Amino acid sequence: MKTPDLTLYTDSSPNGFKITIALEELGLPYVLRHVHIDQGEHRQPDFLQLNPHGRIPVLADEDSGVTLFESAAILLYLAEKTGRLLPGNPVMRWSAIKWLMFHASSMGPILGQRVHYELFESTPNQAVIERYRRLTEDTFATLDNQLKDNHWLAGPEYSIADIATFGWMHIAHIIDFDFKDFSHLSAWFERVSQRPAVQRGISLPQPATGP
Amino acid sequence: MKTPDLTLYTDSSPNGFKITIALEELGLPYVLRHVHIDQGEHRQPDFLQLNPHGRIPVLADEDSGVTLFESAAILLYLAEKTGRLLPGNPVMRWSAIKWLMFHASSMGPILGQRVHYELFESTPNQAVIERYRRLTEDTFATLDNQLKDNHWLAGPEYSIADIATFGWMHIAHIIDFDFKDFSHLSAWFERVSQRPAVQRGISLPQPATGP
Ligand SMILES: N[C@@H](CCC(=O)N[C@@H](CS)C(=O)NCC(=O)O)C(=O)O
Ligand SMILES: N[C@@H](CCC(=O)N[C@@H](CS)C(=O)NCC(=O)O)C(=O)O
Repeated sequence: MKTPDLTLYTDSSPNGFKITIALEELGLPYVLRHVHIDQGEHRQPDFLQLNPHGRIPVLADEDSGVTLFESAAILLYLAEKTGRLLPGNPVMRWSAIKWLMFHASSMGPILGQRVHYELFESTPNQAVIERYRRLTEDTFATLDNQLKDNHWLAGPEYSIADIATFGWMHIAHIIDFDFKDFSHLSAWFERVSQRPAVQRGISLPQPATGP
Repeated sequence: MKTPDLTLYTDSSPNGFKITIALEELGLPYVLRHVHIDQGEHRQPDFLQLNPHGRIPVLADEDSGVTLFESAAILLYLAEKTGRLLPGNPVMRWSAIKWLMFHASSMGPILGQRVHYELFESTPNQAVIERYRRLTEDTFATLDNQLKDNHWLAGPEYSIADIATFGWMHIAHIIDFDFKDFSHLSAWFERVSQRPAVQRGISLPQPATGP
């Protein structure tokens, strides 16, 4: 059997799961390379050749010669490569891209800061923690509002916007960032969780544990 | 004369300038609507209909029926609508999307946090400020490295990746976030600054002032 064209460099983390979930959903063959962040492998020269900023995920496609970092860029690439996971109707398509960007730019980075200050900072600062709680809850409220009348984030079709958002919400759930009062968001979370590709994706390279 | 199809809702701010610059570069007619953040206009019900998260920029296109928030989504939309500001060659095209996403997800949000803690927080916290300085400087270093061998971020062609990154670097420059030691980044900053469309873009709806 031919070696797959796609190689994914990843770890068990919010941005990594977005891509394992997408690849599993698409049924694309790929080589999985586990980059152990806890062992500093993302700071090794070989890996910095792939992403000079030293972050996973990275996807390399031998077929096209494209190597990408940034999970949102990788999701757009996979959608374009396969013609799937992005609606064909232009209004819906741009809705999916808008919610993908909302996640990538307005939500994921703020969740990341909350994780840092709530879980990893040696001298906790209550004011900073409160601010990031409030900002993440604002993003939960925005999603909840969108999901009130939509089965998936961009409408009737499941898309890379759902996958990106779920990658992070899966970790938010594991580390007990509470979003149960956002009932539409919680119901969506359950719907996404039940997809077989999602269940496979969140176990690759291995299931996430708490901090 | 027919009213333009495009309406941009914006303010004089990093994410807003990305879109005025792009529209000026593309020479597209548009209606400019100034949303005064300092007067809370982004929290008015009418504006929340456009972006429930209450942020500028927002672009509405009457021709296609698409209404978008998130500056990176808007830049991708304008590039696709016009077939410009994104290279045609696939490897270069994905390089531009990668650097656009790097800006949108890894750089812009972190600069935003630095601005908050360095300039707007009533009780400054030195450890938090230092952390965001270090993280923004890591992003400057990553860009500097990319610009060592590339005239523009994605290679020989000026693209929406340059425009997005410049929108924020323009503000970083005004508020004295120092990046002069990153010589390739500084030279690129000068190159972008000199473009006539950039000079127009950063004066719309009006030039930014310091904090
Ligand atoms: N905006 C980037 C963020 C990537 C990112 O922060 N990845 C984390 C794991 S989820 C990482 O590699 N962290 C290692 C580090 O920060 O040193 C994306 O969406 O891919
Ligand atoms: N990720 C968003 C960020 C948008 C954003 O934060 N816009 C700022 C102005 S640059 C804003 O509207 N701020 C008002 C507020 O935070 O209340 C984008 O790229 O468009």
